[in-house]
Amino acid sequence: MREYATQMEAARKGICTPQMEAVAKKEQMSVPELMELMAQGKVIIPCNRLHTCIEPNAIGSMLKTKINVNLGTSRDWKDMEMELQKVRDAVEMGAESIMDLSSFGDTAKFRRRLTQECPAMIGTVPIYDAVVYYHKPLKEITAEEWLKIVEMHAKDGVDFMTIHVGINKNTAQRFKKNKRLTNIVSRGGSIIFAWMEMTGEENPFFQYYDRILDICREYDVTMSLGDACRPGCLEDASDISQLEELLTLGELTKRAWEKDVQVMVEGPGHMPMDQIAANMKIQQTVCKGAPFYVLGPLVTDVAPGYDHITAAIGGAMAAASGASFLCYVTPAEHLRLPDVQDVKEGIIASKIAAHAADIAKGVRGAMDWDRKMSAARKRLDWEEMCSRGIDPEKARAYRASAKPEKEDTCSMCGNFCALKNMNRILDGEIVSIYDE
Amino acid sequence: MREYATQMEAARKGICTPQMEAVAKKEQMSVPELMELMAQGKVIIPCNRLHTCIEPNAIGSMLKTKINVNLGTSRDWKDMEMELQKVRDAVEMGAESIMDLSSFGDTAKFRRRLTQECPAMIGTVPIYDAVVYYHKPLKEITAEEWLKIVEMHAKDGVDFMTIHVGINKNTAQRFKKNKRLTNIVSRGGSIIFAWMEMTGEENPFFQYYDRILDICREYDVTMSLGDACRPGCLEDASDISQLEELLTLGELTKRAWEKDVQVMVEGPGHMPMDQIAANMKIQQTVCKGAPFYVLGPLVTDVAPGYDHITAAIGGAMAAASGASFLCYVTPAEHLRLPDVQDVKEGIIASKIAAHAADIAKGVRGAMDWDRKMSAARKRLDWEEMCSRGIDPEKARAYRASAKPEKEDTCSMCGNFCALKNMNRILDGEIVSIYDE
Repeated sequence: MREYATQMEAARKGICTPQMEAVAKKEQMSVPELMELMAQGKVIIPCNRLHTCIEPNAIGSMLKTKINVNLGTSRDWKDMEMELQKVRDAVEMGAESIMDLSSFGDTAKFRRRLTQECPAMIGTVPIYDAVVYYHKPLKEITAEEWLKIVEMHAKDGVDFMTIHVGINKNTAQRFKKNKRLTNIVSRGGSIIFAWMEMTGEENPFFQYYDRILDICREYDVTMSLGDACRPGCLEDASDISQLEELLTLGELTKRAWEKDVQVMVEGPGHMPMDQIAANMKIQQTVCKGAPFYVLGPLVTDVAPGYDHITAAIGGAMAAASGASFLCYVTPAEHLRLPDVQDVKEGIIASKIAAHAADIAKGVRGAMDWDRKMSAARKRLDWEEMCSRGIDPEKARAYRASAKPEKEDTCSMCGNFCALKNMNRILDGEIVSIYDE
Repeated sequence: MREYATQMEAARKGICTPQMEAVAKKEQMSVPELMELMAQGKVIIPCNRLHTCIEPNAIGSMLKTKINVNLGTSRDWKDMEMELQKVRDAVEMGAESIMDLSSFGDTAKFRRRLTQECPAMIGTVPIYDAVVYYHKPLKEITAEEWLKIVEMHAKDGVDFMTIHVGINKNTAQRFKKNKRLTNIVSRGGSIIFAWMEMTGEENPFFQYYDRILDICREYDVTMSLGDACRPGCLEDASDISQLEELLTLGELTKRAWEKDVQVMVEGPGHMPMDQIAANMKIQQTVCKGAPFYVLGPLVTDVAPGYDHITAAIGGAMAAASGASFLCYVTPAEHLRLPDVQDVKEGIIASKIAAHAADIAKGVRGAMDWDRKMSAARKRLDWEEMCSRGIDPEKARAYRASAKPEKEDTCSMCGNFCALKNMNRILDGEIVSIYDE
């Protein structure tokens, strides 16, 4: 008999787990401080007890903001080894989480490779996999079959699962009554909505939520409450459908906590900047401080090819206002499956957003990086500036491509370099500029 | 005898200028409404009366946020025709303003070509040009010579000039007393500071401010009050030097208005996200609503190669909180002079920030673009999505590079396309997914 089923139960019982110890160190906080937040559900450590190679990370609004990268095999990307290489690259670049959204081929094999080899937390969306796994028309999949996939993923060592529990009959009815410009844009949400429409049944994840919680409890899978009604355009943001679903997710959060199941809540989506802080606050009140995992928010709809930037703006604001986990968005969003370069740009944009937010909300140690970088700038130490950069390779390539006249400046200002001239004048030197 | 010297004077006298009419139409506001804001100094129309080919634009916090692009010849980019082509491209991409920062060769010739041919507003920094023009050691340039360059630029038809008036002896003393991590990072600011240190004289732009205002009044040049003490790193943000200079800029704003000279104020810089709104508010109170022209703000120091993104985050927040004019920042910032691709990426990132902010602050008509884009998305009209995008060329290239299985979806979701499946299920069709 284990002393505890989940990290949350351990925290509530005052048991310090190895995961808590590892996390407390990384976050520069004490174990008792961390434990208290975990007991309240404000911090989670997604780590399936069968995912033994994990290097655990915690998610919570007062901690370093974490980022997730979506990958997986699909009809267009069938090569498992290549996809695993992308996973390794993503972890190398600083992703704390990988969501396996595989929708083609031997999905189980890829998933198991991940939980056997990858130190990042692994998330899945069982509903996508069910459609592939059962290989039959959507409406013929039974409630039992949907649940079986959840159990299978739990047994495969998945750390968190997105389950669209909130789009029940009640939410669906409100959605239909209150027209939206882009309806439901969540893949999983649209599948469950279609299934409910075709079968006339209640959302099986909602109906059998307790059974799902039992599975999560057994393996310590973190429940990531999916948002079927996240807005797909600015026009639909913060509308009745989105908020109705959020209220349900608040109730479902409480039920999970009653079984010591760790929970996070998923959120928008497309959203005007002026609504972001309000949404973060409302999620925190309705879901009693459960971590908020956001996709974006994308602050305008008009930038296909640049949605890593629209998401960086929204993600930074969201994280600074309380979100704790950012799903990356790549330049390929709305256009195609991302390639390797897109993945890289998406990760870096998300990391910038996360780090900027961490500084804004005073996460411990966040400013150190900037202080060291700027000290190197002041010293005109170009090698250190590059190596401390978020992407040393790109910084070096840029610098190498435009050799400055003077070693210690850059081709932007040359002799006009303010940093250099200030260092000199404050040292009492003569600054001439024109003939130097 | 002209009826009015400057657009501000015209507004104060109740005279409707052709520029006001053009601007009112673009901004979806009435001329009297615009005129009132201009009379108060809250809106400016930078347009030198000798820049006759200008298509005027206004700058003010309740109007569409405008963006500026820095270009110009330098030791590394001597080709004037190529630089003019970049200017045309930048205007084509939506830049409302071009700052000519030329620091090499026949700067007068390039500047005159700009005001003869370019419909965007043209800004300059006379202080850079002086160093090139006089071709002698910095400390030998006399106060009269500095002023002469200002007059020359005014006669050449320049619409606005950045003049570092605020870094006077008093500001310099406070700066020296309150140590900063990266001192002064403004090029013009560092030049004037060095000149003051070497000569022992007062900042000539400050000392002879009235004469400069007379020049501005004569040609209707907008004064862009430079911020020598803008923070060059997060650590220095919102410090005593920055705010001391801002107070002086507030006093100088008032003096310009007394002569009906149009004014905007320049601002940060590197700044943590949580300080941005406060800075925008303080600038508005201290400078009595004069438009705020910001460079960035860059919300972290650690992303060389990606400062178009750090600036998009900060710029969007700044504009949403009251800034009205964004200076673009390119991926090359802190590394090298930007090339053509960098310029493009910088412009698009700034436009995204500006547009997102315009939506957030409810600028008239801003949301229309997003509404039309999302309506096209809902209809799965890929050609319209691409052509309405902020960069149709990139969107089309992405889409063409990964042909989807089904014409009406994309390779991201394929059969799982939520928009498509929602359209079908709401039309009463059967959705199968697995075998489609």
